[in-house]
Amino acid sequence: MTNLIGPRTLKGFRDYPPELMIPREHLLEKTRQVYRSYGFVPIDTPALEYTEILLGKIEDESEMRKIIYRFQDHGGRDVALRFDLTVPFARFAAQHIGQIGIPFKRYQMGPVWRGENTGHGRYREFWQCDFDTIGTTANAADIEVALVIHDLMKALGFERFEIRVNSRLLLNGFLEVNGLAGKAGLLLRSLDKLSKIGREKVVEEMTREAGVTPDIAHAVLWLAEVPEAAGDNAKILKLLGQYFDSRPSEKAKEGMHRLSELLEVTRQAGVPEDRIRIDPSIARGLDYYTGTVFETFLLDLPDIGSVCSGGRYDDLAGLFTKQKLPGVGASLGLDRLLAGMEELKMLKDEATAAPVLVVQFLADRLGDYQGMARGLRAAGIGADVFPELKKVGQQLQFAERRGFKVALIAGPDEFAQKVWKVKNLALRQETTVGEDQVIAAVQAIVQQKSISHG
Amino acid sequence: MTNLIGPRTLKGFRDYPPELMIPREHLLEKTRQVYRSYGFVPIDTPALEYTEILLGKIEDESEMRKIIYRFQDHGGRDVALRFDLTVPFARFAAQHIGQIGIPFKRYQMGPVWRGENTGHGRYREFWQCDFDTIGTTANAADIEVALVIHDLMKALGFERFEIRVNSRLLLNGFLEVNGLAGKAGLLLRSLDKLSKIGREKVVEEMTREAGVTPDIAHAVLWLAEVPEAAGDNAKILKLLGQYFDSRPSEKAKEGMHRLSELLEVTRQAGVPEDRIRIDPSIARGLDYYTGTVFETFLLDLPDIGSVCSGGRYDDLAGLFTKQKLPGVGASLGLDRLLAGMEELKMLKDEATAAPVLVVQFLADRLGDYQGMARGLRAAGIGADVFPELKKVGQQLQFAERRGFKVALIAGPDEFAQKVWKVKNLALRQETTVGEDQVIAAVQAIVQQKSISHG
Repeated sequence: MTNLIGPRTLKGFRDYPPELMIPREHLLEKTRQVYRSYGFVPIDTPALEYTEILLGKIEDESEMRKIIYRFQDHGGRDVALRFDLTVPFARFAAQHIGQIGIPFKRYQMGPVWRGENTGHGRYREFWQCDFDTIGTTANAADIEVALVIHDLMKALGFERFEIRVNSRLLLNGFLEVNGLAGKAGLLLRSLDKLSKIGREKVVEEMTREAGVTPDIAHAVLWLAEVPEAAGDNAKILKLLGQYFDSRPSEKAKEGMHRLSELLEVTRQAGVPEDRIRIDPSIARGLDYYTGTVFETFLLDLPDIGSVCSGGRYDDLAGLFTKQKLPGVGASLGLDRLLAGMEELKMLKDEATAAPVLVVQFLADRLGDYQGMARGLRAAGIGADVFPELKKVGQQLQFAERRGFKVALIAGPDEFAQKVWKVKNLALRQETTVGEDQVIAAVQAIVQQKSISHG
Repeated sequence: MTNLIGPRTLKGFRDYPPELMIPREHLLEKTRQVYRSYGFVPIDTPALEYTEILLGKIEDESEMRKIIYRFQDHGGRDVALRFDLTVPFARFAAQHIGQIGIPFKRYQMGPVWRGENTGHGRYREFWQCDFDTIGTTANAADIEVALVIHDLMKALGFERFEIRVNSRLLLNGFLEVNGLAGKAGLLLRSLDKLSKIGREKVVEEMTREAGVTPDIAHAVLWLAEVPEAAGDNAKILKLLGQYFDSRPSEKAKEGMHRLSELLEVTRQAGVPEDRIRIDPSIARGLDYYTGTVFETFLLDLPDIGSVCSGGRYDDLAGLFTKQKLPGVGASLGLDRLLAGMEELKMLKDEATAAPVLVVQFLADRLGDYQGMARGLRAAGIGADVFPELKKVGQQLQFAERRGFKVALIAGPDEFAQKVWKVKNLALRQETTVGEDQVIAAVQAIVQQKSISHG
C-alpha cells in the first residue's frame, strides 16, 4: 500500500479513546441501574427511520429539517438518522402499545445525529438517555421523575445539585388571568433570556415583541423572580397562592396542587428538601410540555445548564395513533454531564479496565500466569497477562503508565517456593505471599485504592 | 391531527421491545465484564465516517460497495455508515496509537449497518462486539483470545460449546508443499462447502474450478477430515506432524507449534480440554487472517454457525499508517447468539426490570410507598410503585402479567400496625411482616426465585 489515506473523523464527530470511554460506560451503567431499579424497562429502535416519521411533527420552517441527516436508501426510500429518541419512542408506542399495555415505563439510551453547527462542545453525534412513563396522568408518575433524577444524580456521585420544578399549568394559568394566553410563546421566549440580558432588556423586548405594557412585563418578571424573593418552597407556594387568591385560575390551582404534592411525597420518601426547588420561570419546550417540567443544575457549575430535563406531555403519539398516550419523563444529557464531571475533576484518569497486571517472566509458565489471572477474574478482579516476554522493568513501566494498581510477578525462585510477589504500584511496595494468599493480598490493595478514590 | 402516519420500521430494521431488550442488555453487560476482566478497554468511534476511509480496502467489485449506506452530508462530504467495527478501529489505531502505545487491547460494541438482502433472520442493522490485541505478534495474545471466548461463553450461560482453532500458517504450509499456493482461494472456497454439498461434489468442483487432479482434491479433503479421523487434539497434531515429516514446511511447523502451545496453556490455565478443538478445515476471511483462526459452535445448535469468530492478522491499519500493527481478536455475534438462546429456551420471559411492585392503596400514602421502594432500591432490589389508584386486584393482575415476583401492600390497617403484606406472586402466598422486616422478606423471595431459574 503506497498511498496512505489520512485517518480522520468527520467534522463534529469524535472518537472515544479509553480514558473517555471508561467513565462514559460507567455513567451509562449507573444510569441503567437507577432506571431499572424504578422498574423502567429498556427498549431500542433503529438508527434509521422513514423521514416522514421523524419529521412528521416538525414544522416546515424548523431548523430540524435542515440539520437532519437524510438520504435515499438502496430501495429509493426517503430515510433519515434519528435526531432524538422521543419521536422513535412515539412511533414505537403507537405500533406496540396494544401488546405491551399501559402504564408503560421505558428507558432508551443511544446515539442521535444532528448536522448542527459545531462549537461550544457541541457534536453532531451524541447520546441521549431517556426515561418515560406513558399511559397515565397520575401525579405519582410526575413525582417519580423527580425521585429518579435525584437518585440518578446521587448514583453518579453528585451531592451538590438542585432539581428545579415548575408546572406549565401554573404558567398558563398565570398568563390566562392576565389575558396573555395568546402571547405565551413570545413572552416566555423573552423571559428565558433573563439571566443573559437582564431585567430591563427583557421588559423592553416584551413590550416591543409581544406588545404588552411595561406593567404586564413586570408582572411576568415577578413570576420568574418569586423564588428569589420568597426563599424556600413553602414561601414560594404561599406567595403564588396569595397571587391567585385574587385571580382565580383552575389551571394554576391544579399546577400548584401537583407541585406541592411532589414536594411532600419526595420529602416523605427521603429526599432532602433542599434538593428540589420550585422555579416558576422554567418553561421548556413551549409546544410540547403541558404539566410538570424539570431541570437539574449542578450547584458548582450552573452555567453549563440543565443536565437532566423533561416534563409531562398530554399525548406522545398523536401523529401515529388515535390512542391518547399522556406521559411524563426526562432525559439525561450524558455528554454535558461528562464534560461537567471532567471540569469538576470527578473522573479518574484510568486507561485500564483491569487493576492487576500479571508479568510474563518465563515463557513456559504462561499457563500458570493465565491460571492465576483466571483465578483473580473468578474472584471478580480483572487481570491482564502481559503478552510479551519483555524485561520485568519494562512491563512494570507499562503497568504504571496505564494505571494498573497491582503487578504480580513469579520467576523460577517463586515457582520453586510456590509464592508470588505482589507489587502495590501506587505505593511501590512489594510483598511475597503464598500462592493461595495472592487473591486476598490483591483484594486488600484494590479495595484500599477504591476507597481512597471516594 | 386527522391524517395519521402509519407507524412502521424500515425493511430489515426492527424494534427491540423489553422482552428482547432485557436479555440483550444482559448479554452486553456480561460480555463487557468478561472483556474488561482480561484488561481490554472500551473505545467508541462514530457511526458515520468518510466513505473513502470505510471503503479504502474494499475491492471495486465487492458486494460491500453495493450494500453500504452512503450519502452526501450537509457539507457535501461523501459519508457512509460503518459496516463493521474493524475498519473504524484500523482508522482509530492509525490516528491515536502514538498516544496510546502498544500493546493495546480494546473492545468495542455497537451497531453496524449493511443494506443487504434480508431473510434468514438477517437484519440491516445489527450489533458487533469486537475485542482485539494489537501491537504484538506474541502467541500469548492468540491464546488469550481462546481464553476470552471460553470464559465469555461460560459467563453467558453455556456449557455445551466448542471453540475450533486452526492456523492459516498450517493451511498455507499445506498448500505450498502441494504446490497449490496460488490456488488457495479457489480450493478453500470449495472446501468450505463440504458440510453442505458433500465430499464428491467438492472434489468435482475443485477439479473443475481450481484445475487440480482428483488426487490433489482428495489430499485437501484429507486435511479437512483429519479431526474426525484422528479423534482428539493430540492425535490430530500427531497425524499432521507425520504428514509434514515427509513434506517439510516452516510455515506449517510454526502453525502447529502455536496451536499446540495454545492447547497446553489453556489446559494449564484451567479450561477443560474438550472445549477447544483443532479443525484444519477452518479458513475464515481468506485475505485478512494470517495466523490462528477461531470459530465457536453451540453443540446443541451447530447449524446456526459460529457465534464467536476471529483470528490473527499481520497488519491492521496498513491503509492509514506506515506503522505495522499486527494483532489478534474476535467478534461475538450478538444477534445470532440471542436467536440461539431463544431457540434453546435459555431466555427468561421478563417484561420488568424490577422484581417488586408496591401497590398504591391510599393516595395520601404515596410518600410511604415511595419511601419503602427507595429502601428496597438502596438494598439493591428494584421496586416499582404503581402510579394509579386502581383496585388492588387490578394492580396485582398487572404485576403478574409483567412478571413481577413480589407485591407489597399496605392499607389503613397495615399502616396502623406498622406492617406490610408481602405477596409471593409465583406461589400466590402472602405473609404479613413488620415494616423493618420487609426487605429481608423480599430478599428471601427474590433470591429463591433466581436460584430456581438456574
